[in-house]
Amino acid sequence: MTQLRSVEWRAAGVAVLDQRLLPQQTVVNVYTTVADVAESIRSMQVRGAPAIGCTAAYGMALVPGTVVATTGADVLPALADARQVLDASRPTAVNLFWATRRMYEYAERHADMPIAAFQDALIQEAETIFAEDVAMCQAIGRHGEPLIPARGQVLTHCNAGGLATAGYGTALGPIYRAHELGRAVHVYVDETRPYLQGARLTAFELHHAGVPLTLITDNMAAYFMGQGQVDCVIVGADRIAANGDVANKIGTYGLAVLAHAHGIPMYVAAPTSTIDMRISDGSMIPIEERSSDEVTMIGGRRIAPEGVQAAHPAFDVTPARLISGIICEHGVLRAPYTQSLAELMQKL
Amino acid sequence: MTQLRSVEWRAAGVAVLDQRLLPQQTVVNVYTTVADVAESIRSMQVRGAPAIGCTAAYGMALVPGTVVATTGADVLPALADARQVLDASRPTAVNLFWATRRMYEYAERHADMPIAAFQDALIQEAETIFAEDVAMCQAIGRHGEPLIPARGQVLTHCNAGGLATAGYGTALGPIYRAHELGRAVHVYVDETRPYLQGARLTAFELHHAGVPLTLITDNMAAYFMGQGQVDCVIVGADRIAANGDVANKIGTYGLAVLAHAHGIPMYVAAPTSTIDMRISDGSMIPIEERSSDEVTMIGGRRIAPEGVQAAHPAFDVTPARLISGIICEHGVLRAPYTQSLAELMQKL
Repeated sequence: MTQLRSVEWRAAGVAVLDQRLLPQQTVVNVYTTVADVAESIRSMQVRGAPAIGCTAAYGMALVPGTVVATTGADVLPALADARQVLDASRPTAVNLFWATRRMYEYAERHADMPIAAFQDALIQEAETIFAEDVAMCQAIGRHGEPLIPARGQVLTHCNAGGLATAGYGTALGPIYRAHELGRAVHVYVDETRPYLQGARLTAFELHHAGVPLTLITDNMAAYFMGQGQVDCVIVGADRIAANGDVANKIGTYGLAVLAHAHGIPMYVAAPTSTIDMRISDGSMIPIEERSSDEVTMIGGRRIAPEGVQAAHPAFDVTPARLISGIICEHGVLRAPYTQSLAELMQKL
Repeated sequence: MTQLRSVEWRAAGVAVLDQRLLPQQTVVNVYTTVADVAESIRSMQVRGAPAIGCTAAYGMALVPGTVVATTGADVLPALADARQVLDASRPTAVNLFWATRRMYEYAERHADMPIAAFQDALIQEAETIFAEDVAMCQAIGRHGEPLIPARGQVLTHCNAGGLATAGYGTALGPIYRAHELGRAVHVYVDETRPYLQGARLTAFELHHAGVPLTLITDNMAAYFMGQGQVDCVIVGADRIAANGDVANKIGTYGLAVLAHAHGIPMYVAAPTSTIDMRISDGSMIPIEERSSDEVTMIGGRRIAPEGVQAAHPAFDVTPARLISGIICEHGVLRAPYTQSLAELMQKL
């Protein structure tokens, strides 16, 4: 395990890197019960939809070791319970439900196995989910890397990196790939208030990987664009509508407007699982309003006067017209997105 | 004194509101020596060019009380020393030099006064400087208020308010005026990383004055513009070039680009003392690079990993083409600014 693996299976249990403590402390907690794994998701020790999915899959693989059983069939009731517990930990996480369902259906298909082989098989299936996610990120990296101009000055927002996935990351995938190829690459990392995912997580993992970076406050992005210091912007996505509108961390829309005004390409890197063809456009995506305490406080310390109202829309929607390309594991999609997304999704 | 007066003369000395402690604590320090007043400026207990100028003027008025003298003439050498000490406290502050020179030249003209009357006259001159600054801000408020559209949704950045001036403020002047007139007005306050002047100071003084506000992180501005929630943007200025380019707190340029893209008027409110006709355009304004610790830390607490490089350009330059109007104490200037600024400055 590299220091930055968000989650991994160990003989002792499910090892979760506590991202809440980064970058000050690198603490890995090893959990042996489904309840503890679910709590690690709920309390946001692990975050990022793919990383959450992997964690839940490993959680399911713990179950056979906690039940007196002869074959897999004896474990199925406990697996059904575990699935419920894990699914309740982050009720909006699509990858979570997908991973627990996949593990449960796999268990059903292998219910006649002797218990030892059954447990090994579940562990292996969780490892496969993990490996598939890494492979998906690496494919995004391969497809996205050629989009980074020669000088390699990339700006990113929030954390769509190895910490949010099984490894390698989505938005950071093309950057890691360019770095591996020995290309010059340098990243402007938006700190990403209010949660500071950029300062805490993206700066941490890029620095760990030896990728040159400059941390900036969100309001400096336009300055560096205006100075000609940014060659392209690459961000992740929480959800992509059928017309190519993209919901992502608050601040993404502003970056897209600024990039457009400066003639800088703006790319979105995300797996096809992020594309939601049932949603025709971004206006149908609800924007989650989170606690205003996250704006009035930083790390538990109050920065604004008592009694002051603050807003905290956690996401925004970037219209497709501002997006230069969507980098997924199958390639780079271009406008018109209604057509390119539909064609891709029909093939899958 | 209202709670929010940045500085005032008291029988006991010069009373300075320690803005470093806002909004958590409201502490007023009373200083009786020039050295202590200079230190309060150097250590940024008081900030904002007009407020610094007033503080230095009051500091000069302390000198007669510290010297054995019969007439004002006996005090002039000590006043010359005080001027040097005060001028050295913030070497780039134009208002500071202006205020100490005005006080010294006033003292020279009244050097034949008996010492008691001389001291009273110096105090009165400092009070005049203060009152002129308030009047200047109120004039900006009167000229700027009609520019706020009927619904009154204003976005501002940093603190160009009563705390940065003798009172009332420049960018906040039109907002206070609208509020005084009983108009509906509501302010989106950018927190303004890295120093958080918006969250700490602007939110504090607007809340104190009863003006409705919503505190937002800098990266939320585009979201609220896109939602149609912002009717105009009003910011202050550190320096205005002869062609209307404006240097102001980092983040101002990005707001100007975003406002332009959304068809929202962007106003700059500043006294004519901010206009520097020797500078033909913004490219000639050097951008101060401040300590990157202010980006990697918040309130002394480290948020980014050790060893990570951060950038901290403290200001940016907004090109005149993105500015809808410059509100000064004599009225509202419009493009072409090369012409309107030249005409105004010739009249003064």
